[in-house]
Amino acid sequence: MTAIATALAAVVGDERVVRGPVDAYVKDETETRLIVGSCAAVVEPRSTEEVAAVVRWAYEHEVPVVPRGGGTGYAGGAVPFAGSVVVSLAKLTAFRRFDPELWRAEVEAGVTTHLLQRRARENGLLYPPDPGAGEQSHIGGNIATNAGGPHAFKYGTTGAWITGIEAVVPPGEVITIGGAITKDVAGYDLKHVLIGSEGTLGVITCAWVRFIPAPEARHPVVGLFPSTATGVEAIEAMVGSGVAVAVLDYLDHGALAAAPPAFADGDVAERVGFALLCEADGTAVEARSVRAAAIAVVEECGGLAVAPLDASGVAAVWRWREGMTGAVTTVRGGKVSEDIVVPLDRLREAIDGTHAIGDAVGLPACSWGHAGDGNLHSTFLVDTSDPDQLRRAEAGAVALFDLAVELGGSLSGEHGLGLVKSGQLERFWAPRKLELHRGIKTLFDPKGLMNPGKKQ
Amino acid sequence: MTAIATALAAVVGDERVVRGPVDAYVKDETETRLIVGSCAAVVEPRSTEEVAAVVRWAYEHEVPVVPRGGGTGYAGGAVPFAGSVVVSLAKLTAFRRFDPELWRAEVEAGVTTHLLQRRARENGLLYPPDPGAGEQSHIGGNIATNAGGPHAFKYGTTGAWITGIEAVVPPGEVITIGGAITKDVAGYDLKHVLIGSEGTLGVITCAWVRFIPAPEARHPVVGLFPSTATGVEAIEAMVGSGVAVAVLDYLDHGALAAAPPAFADGDVAERVGFALLCEADGTAVEARSVRAAAIAVVEECGGLAVAPLDASGVAAVWRWREGMTGAVTTVRGGKVSEDIVVPLDRLREAIDGTHAIGDAVGLPACSWGHAGDGNLHSTFLVDTSDPDQLRRAEAGAVALFDLAVELGGSLSGEHGLGLVKSGQLERFWAPRKLELHRGIKTLFDPKGLMNPGKKQ
Repeated sequence: MTAIATALAAVVGDERVVRGPVDAYVKDETETRLIVGSCAAVVEPRSTEEVAAVVRWAYEHEVPVVPRGGGTGYAGGAVPFAGSVVVSLAKLTAFRRFDPELWRAEVEAGVTTHLLQRRARENGLLYPPDPGAGEQSHIGGNIATNAGGPHAFKYGTTGAWITGIEAVVPPGEVITIGGAITKDVAGYDLKHVLIGSEGTLGVITCAWVRFIPAPEARHPVVGLFPSTATGVEAIEAMVGSGVAVAVLDYLDHGALAAAPPAFADGDVAERVGFALLCEADGTAVEARSVRAAAIAVVEECGGLAVAPLDASGVAAVWRWREGMTGAVTTVRGGKVSEDIVVPLDRLREAIDGTHAIGDAVGLPACSWGHAGDGNLHSTFLVDTSDPDQLRRAEAGAVALFDLAVELGGSLSGEHGLGLVKSGQLERFWAPRKLELHRGIKTLFDPKGLMNPGKKQ
Repeated sequence: MTAIATALAAVVGDERVVRGPVDAYVKDETETRLIVGSCAAVVEPRSTEEVAAVVRWAYEHEVPVVPRGGGTGYAGGAVPFAGSVVVSLAKLTAFRRFDPELWRAEVEAGVTTHLLQRRARENGLLYPPDPGAGEQSHIGGNIATNAGGPHAFKYGTTGAWITGIEAVVPPGEVITIGGAITKDVAGYDLKHVLIGSEGTLGVITCAWVRFIPAPEARHPVVGLFPSTATGVEAIEAMVGSGVAVAVLDYLDHGALAAAPPAFADGDVAERVGFALLCEADGTAVEARSVRAAAIAVVEECGGLAVAPLDASGVAAVWRWREGMTGAVTTVRGGKVSEDIVVPLDRLREAIDGTHAIGDAVGLPACSWGHAGDGNLHSTFLVDTSDPDQLRRAEAGAVALFDLAVELGGSLSGEHGLGLVKSGQLERFWAPRKLELHRGIKTLFDPKGLMNPGKKQ
């Protein structure tokens, strides 16, 4: 055991310190671009008080603290630097309260997104946010990154569903903000400051979440188009004609090459250059009506609509969408993916621009993502055994950020800055805005020990 | 002209400085509790650059700045202290962009809430927030207070509809946060820090707002109940059975005495001790179905449902609801009203508690508000010519804050702290939380010149 691990064992008990290899605690999904960290110790507290004790000790001894949820992030936000203490929230899994009849729950940070969704569903409710990897990802991590997902188009990102937060902030104090209330304008919005703060201001230990009654029905509508131009036209037609789908995702031809729509007719699948994935939800009648409207838009724009109503057909569509990231990664073994966001009317330029950048750096490119939110997962495929490819992909990522900002957008729609976008803000933000950003960091974390190197 | 007015005329031009009486610029709705301020000058800039010039000048000369929207606040947030410059945003009224086909607009701070709602409606869209006094209130003020309203139950408060903000922050710089994008996790959430900041961190000059397709139909359902107990039971039944109404407001017997439901049968109106106002919206089919479900809940809980479908009947219901504040004020000529918020399951205690406090301070009390959000407008009626009544009402307000926090709630759901709740935060917030709140103020406004005395 390291000296730090030994000291922490004295603080929170020997059994809270992880023994043996800590490989699983020093990486996240950026492993596909060879980012792996190291740390001095991993602790798994079992209560907020234990988290506070760890942060207090670390603050006193000037040891960096890296909070860790499910480790499913795409920005390296949970990747620790040597000498840090990783604070895993995996053992904080209590539903402190679950009041389905009041559409709310108070859940500890380590509850998985899927479990929260499932408990809601079992009670006729919906917890709408659906970032990927729901089996692994934690609600605490979802809040710390303000995670999105396909349904954010209609329902907003994680932050919209959080009415209260309990967090441990430096130098090791527990604060609670909001609670089982849906409105609160008493002080400055500290809740939203913590939402999306990527563990750099404090450790989120518990949250009050709200639900809504579950829609009666949900129906996917896939639109297969010959080209990006026709597909994007359909997106604009869908929005412009007020078809209020809950999901409006897309996949470009590069993404489709890695993950062909096997559920569609074989010949068709080989010909598609762009795909839309919509979902119509609501009451049974409404979902059918929105589904019909979405199919009509797809067909009017020259697309082929695939809109299964049977359970296995629906499952096949979602399996395809959820397998996207894995499918793209396996093409060359690795990928560098960024989640830029642009105004909806600039989506076409961002999709084409991703390919232009790929050409410029000499790597296969593709994108998919949340079209309705203008949120692309712009990706360069790499063979991770080739350092030159990785280097070129990272250069491509920087070019993507330029592109996003040039189009009136931003660096990240849902993944956060993490480690991988370190230094990007100062390329784009005005000095006073940057000063406010950094001032918030200093206010919460004057010693700079909370997840250092991230979100900066 | 004061020396300050003369100096400002040199900065932004003579015609931007308001001449003659400035009475209309030194008060808001807290006039009903005799709160009126004074100022050294009023300016009405016509561009963001002019706002920046004023703030720069004020910051250099250490003159306080009080941003002013429509002046419809209930917390004295726009009431200036002597020596201040009032910066009215009334002349910043441009729609810089209006893209109905993309469900968005970029509007300057002085656009009235009603105009924004109307432009959306004319294009088949909905801007959901509906704080009262929409003809007067400005979108800038709505953002600065994170204004709510009846439809916040389903659609959230103003902040949920703002995707970008342009603001002038000390020492006089223009920053833009977000934009025509619906997701952004690049930096800390400075947007939400400004939302609800009540002009104490900067002057909001422009905002990007988003819309959704308008619901096809909206139907009110009023439930009249013999008592608070039965009415609250109906609220819980409505939520518990998943009837997803868009509005779930209430009026208690004190409020009903001031504003009897004249649209209902005369005899009935005199007997009601509690009223619910719901609205069912959605597609025509859905709105009808939710309306029927709401009527069923009202009747199952022993209430009488009044659910007009004709335009004049619907208008009468909303006239009644919107006339509430005025009706209550006229009973004694004045009122002291606070907008505490509590968890939904504590609503009954908060309503009864308001009356208990009224009894304790010897004043007639009543409450109405947004039941679904646990957001009460708890009110004590006063004859403003009697200083003792005013004093007792203010003591009652302090007791209301204690009650709200004791029930797990907060001081304000939608009105903000303003001037009238000055000093309350430190009675309830933990020292570290208070330090973070104050640190944000210092970070944005190191000289403490932005709307001093508010939100503290």
